[in-house]
Amino acid sequence: MYFVGVDGGATKTLAILSDKQGRILGWGLSGPSNYHQVGVEGAINAINEAVTKAMSMAKVNRVNVMCCGLAGIDTKRDYEIMYKHINSIELAEKKILVHDAIIALMGATAGRPGVVVIAGTGSVAAGMNERGEYTRVGGWGPILGDEGSAYYIAREALAAVLKSYDGREEETMLTSELLKAMNLREVEDIVNKIYVEKVGVTYIASLAPVVTKCASLGDRVALRIIRRAAKELAELIIAVAKKLKMTEYEFSIALVGGVFKAGDLIIKPLYEEVKRVAPKAKIIEPMLPPCAGALIMALREGGIKIEQNVVTNIKNTLKNVPV
Amino acid sequence: MYFVGVDGGATKTLAILSDKQGRILGWGLSGPSNYHQVGVEGAINAINEAVTKAMSMAKVNRVNVMCCGLAGIDTKRDYEIMYKHINSIELAEKKILVHDAIIALMGATAGRPGVVVIAGTGSVAAGMNERGEYTRVGGWGPILGDEGSAYYIAREALAAVLKSYDGREEETMLTSELLKAMNLREVEDIVNKIYVEKVGVTYIASLAPVVTKCASLGDRVALRIIRRAAKELAELIIAVAKKLKMTEYEFSIALVGGVFKAGDLIIKPLYEEVKRVAPKAKIIEPMLPPCAGALIMALREGGIKIEQNVVTNIKNTLKNVPV
Repeated sequence: MYFVGVDGGATKTLAILSDKQGRILGWGLSGPSNYHQVGVEGAINAINEAVTKAMSMAKVNRVNVMCCGLAGIDTKRDYEIMYKHINSIELAEKKILVHDAIIALMGATAGRPGVVVIAGTGSVAAGMNERGEYTRVGGWGPILGDEGSAYYIAREALAAVLKSYDGREEETMLTSELLKAMNLREVEDIVNKIYVEKVGVTYIASLAPVVTKCASLGDRVALRIIRRAAKELAELIIAVAKKLKMTEYEFSIALVGGVFKAGDLIIKPLYEEVKRVAPKAKIIEPMLPPCAGALIMALREGGIKIEQNVVTNIKNTLKNVPV
Repeated sequence: MYFVGVDGGATKTLAILSDKQGRILGWGLSGPSNYHQVGVEGAINAINEAVTKAMSMAKVNRVNVMCCGLAGIDTKRDYEIMYKHINSIELAEKKILVHDAIIALMGATAGRPGVVVIAGTGSVAAGMNERGEYTRVGGWGPILGDEGSAYYIAREALAAVLKSYDGREEETMLTSELLKAMNLREVEDIVNKIYVEKVGVTYIASLAPVVTKCASLGDRVALRIIRRAAKELAELIIAVAKKLKMTEYEFSIALVGGVFKAGDLIIKPLYEEVKRVAPKAKIIEPMLPPCAGALIMALREGGIKIEQNVVTNIKNTLKNVPV
């Protein structure tokens, strides 16, 4: 029996193929498969390409279960649109489709109950309880949500710089540091950069480390923004834990994404906030990457129990895969 | 001697022409003149058209001073780009160019010292003190600023609906009322509307009255959003008053824009906040529209003192102009 896990994101699609012991026999890489960016056909082509490469490397011509964890599967409508097309892929007998936060969760906890919070350009949290029930909160994008994400942090910082320029906010190191990072001379040039050059969400999100730097140097405005972000991310975790009725029990929290490079500056206030509601929750290092989370879901769907030896096999054979 | 005031906005450009007593002899209407939308040439053409129509109606072939108050003149760079072109218009001997918030101020207070805060799709405040010094704060657009605007209020409300859906926010009447206003069935459909249909800032801003309605019915989430908006708008006024060293003196505050249709719900907390810093400030009804503010600036630039009879003349002869 053979199983495939697919991690399909905004920049690349990675497929890994294993036997029923979790030994990875092949992998394949292709372009993005967020259908909001590349269209349904583009996404399906990318998935097909990655899976075909993995099968060819493994010298396997039929897969029992394939699990795709895709970015952009945010609403029921997204799910319905993509599932219809995923299901028509002939490479595997059975196909599962889930939001990419779910495979990040399954990877981070290696299939065990817990909560993952992802804070990169956007933000989202997902969790699974002892009864195997899933849920996901947040991930509503830069206009409606993504609280606590890199985009949120940097946008709040830019707004604070303009407020400070107006005299509506105290003076802040963010002004000089953000101008330097953006290679601009004057505060008003920021307005041009954002609206005339239309630099977009990814560019803005890339400025978040500047905020972390200023906060670590004690800048009060930057610290306030980082703490608010920590609180927003904690609220994502708490909402997941409440929905899954886990708040009184022990569970793991895995923190994934660039925002957590800020370390204790963001993790400490986040953890304090979470512990007020879920005192037994523990922060762990993510155990496996999202593609392995997708593979675990495929294995489980095929009736394989995820014992320690399976996790160890995945871990050991992942070494050659460019995750 | 003849004078022209131009109010150039995102939807239309209106020019009014008067004699030195402020009696309006002609007016002209044309398309938008925000150069960020229609380009420099488009903006100049719209201004030319409106002024030419006004001159033709007044049977005047030369104007002494023209004052243009234009949307989109937010930075020094914007000013330099547009001034060069405004200055090349041959219809008037002397030309002045200012931000549209300044003409709104001059209209609202009929040329007297005071502060105006504009809260429509965006938000901005401007003021003038007894010494004739001007300043402007805010107006940094939907990503970097516009706190307290209709866009801000509606976006916060949509984000609250999604937070509530996730269990990160209490239940709110905003959910059913916004869905009804957007003609959608489910909360997740909001995501599609915003990111797939890409409805944009103006559409989102148009939902602000729904928030006012829910707040007036006592919805706690809506009330919190409206109060936060009031505080943000108060901060714009306070920043202007501080910059102009007016906080200890009597001055008028004029409230302009659709957000203030919410009445006491937003005006009461705003005024309380302002009075803590500027206890002698008084809220007034705007006296004249922005085009009259531009005309007053043109008259003053031409050496005309703005006595009561000039204001009365403008007021009386404005009746036939579609402001």
